[in-house]
Amino acid sequence: MRITVLTLFPEMFDGFLHTSIIKRALDKQQVEIELVNFRDFTLDKHNKVDEYPYGGGQGMVLMCQPIVDAIKHYRTENSTVILITPEGKTFKQEIARELVYKEHLIFVCGHYEGFDARIAKYCDMQLSLGDFILTGGEVAVMAISDAIIRLLDGVIRESSHQDESFENQLLEYPQYTRPVDFEGHKVPDVLLSGHHENIRKWRLKESLKRTLELRPDLLETKELTKEESKMLEEIKSDC
Amino acid sequence: MRITVLTLFPEMFDGFLHTSIIKRALDKQQVEIELVNFRDFTLDKHNKVDEYPYGGGQGMVLMCQPIVDAIKHYRTENSTVILITPEGKTFKQEIARELVYKEHLIFVCGHYEGFDARIAKYCDMQLSLGDFILTGGEVAVMAISDAIIRLLDGVIRESSHQDESFENQLLEYPQYTRPVDFEGHKVPDVLLSGHHENIRKWRLKESLKRTLELRPDLLETKELTKEESKMLEEIKSDC
Repeated sequence: MRITVLTLFPEMFDGFLHTSIIKRALDKQQVEIELVNFRDFTLDKHNKVDEYPYGGGQGMVLMCQPIVDAIKHYRTENSTVILITPEGKTFKQEIARELVYKEHLIFVCGHYEGFDARIAKYCDMQLSLGDFILTGGEVAVMAISDAIIRLLDGVIRESSHQDESFENQLLEYPQYTRPVDFEGHKVPDVLLSGHHENIRKWRLKESLKRTLELRPDLLETKELTKEESKMLEEIKSDC
Repeated sequence: MRITVLTLFPEMFDGFLHTSIIKRALDKQQVEIELVNFRDFTLDKHNKVDEYPYGGGQGMVLMCQPIVDAIKHYRTENSTVILITPEGKTFKQEIARELVYKEHLIFVCGHYEGFDARIAKYCDMQLSLGDFILTGGEVAVMAISDAIIRLLDGVIRESSHQDESFENQLLEYPQYTRPVDFEGHKVPDVLLSGHHENIRKWRLKESLKRTLELRPDLLETKELTKEESKMLEEIKSDC
């Protein structure tokens, strides 16, 4: 996979690219990331990339020309161009699972300012990280790229994905490790029992409990197995 | 405001801290950010911070001792300790607006692995960036800190906040800047008219239209003004 980031602040990615899983995926050439300052594409003699908005108002607006020219320069027939904007579709794990199959992603980041609305016509999709405002799209691109890159083959063990939150529309069950007693807080007995089937059932039930308590919205669209339906009934009748 | 980040990868924050708005806020001492590697707190002779989970399963689990000792070391009576985890409450602009009044935030980041569930007992809240899985909490902390820091007094102009997406449960209206015609795509006439009241109405209507189309969920909980209700009726009858 190749990822091209169009940004005014390529240096923001320094720490992200040189740490842990992402560094390893880059070193093993599972992904290639290129950072492009779209200011290099401006035809303005003062190197400007933004201008006052038509109709008045606070702040500056990123102009079409530099960004659109940068998109045209990097886009191939295998590219998906993604504009990062609060008006975009909210990024979710299911979108990560779709984008992991793309050959080339081009992310367009604004920073602080808004985009000229016409830039969206040159993009394939608009994504938002969530219902909050960031000073720029850069951190959103790190989050989205991170969620995608870790799904690429060989980046982390396949089996690590199975029980994760959101992978099956359930929150993950609680995990415990040494010591059995930490300042009076104990590990549930079942986890020390060595009884695999009981442990599996306990974990599934805890996943369902947590999801019902913290994120009931996830259950509304989930297709429950028979076992899950029965457990959920038990949990509800216990309350 | 003071922000303490407990992380195994402090270097991931390099680019974030040295760029743009965050750098300026740090330089002007509007915020102080300290990065703490909680591995420095482990009592394990091999410097370990994680262990295999009780009950079996993939992956490692972050142990209580190093993280809890780090929390105890940095926590004061004015601290709010926030655990970053997919099971947490989804971060939103309204949470940013609450947290901006806190004196001291302590963020606890896992990386790749899960937490021992007992660590949550030492935290005041659990936050998630959204319904997706990251390799660690670090990028989530950047996003959450960024959304909070830009709301601090004097970091960006107060008036810049008013028309932003999510500030009033509406998506922002489309913005346009020079040129009037870009490759055949034109700026709407009303924005060139100089008629302030018409521009205001057009922008409000476009905000409502966008929100109705892209994020109808935001309208469900919004208290509409009379003008907004009327416009919304018009928009619906136009469809």
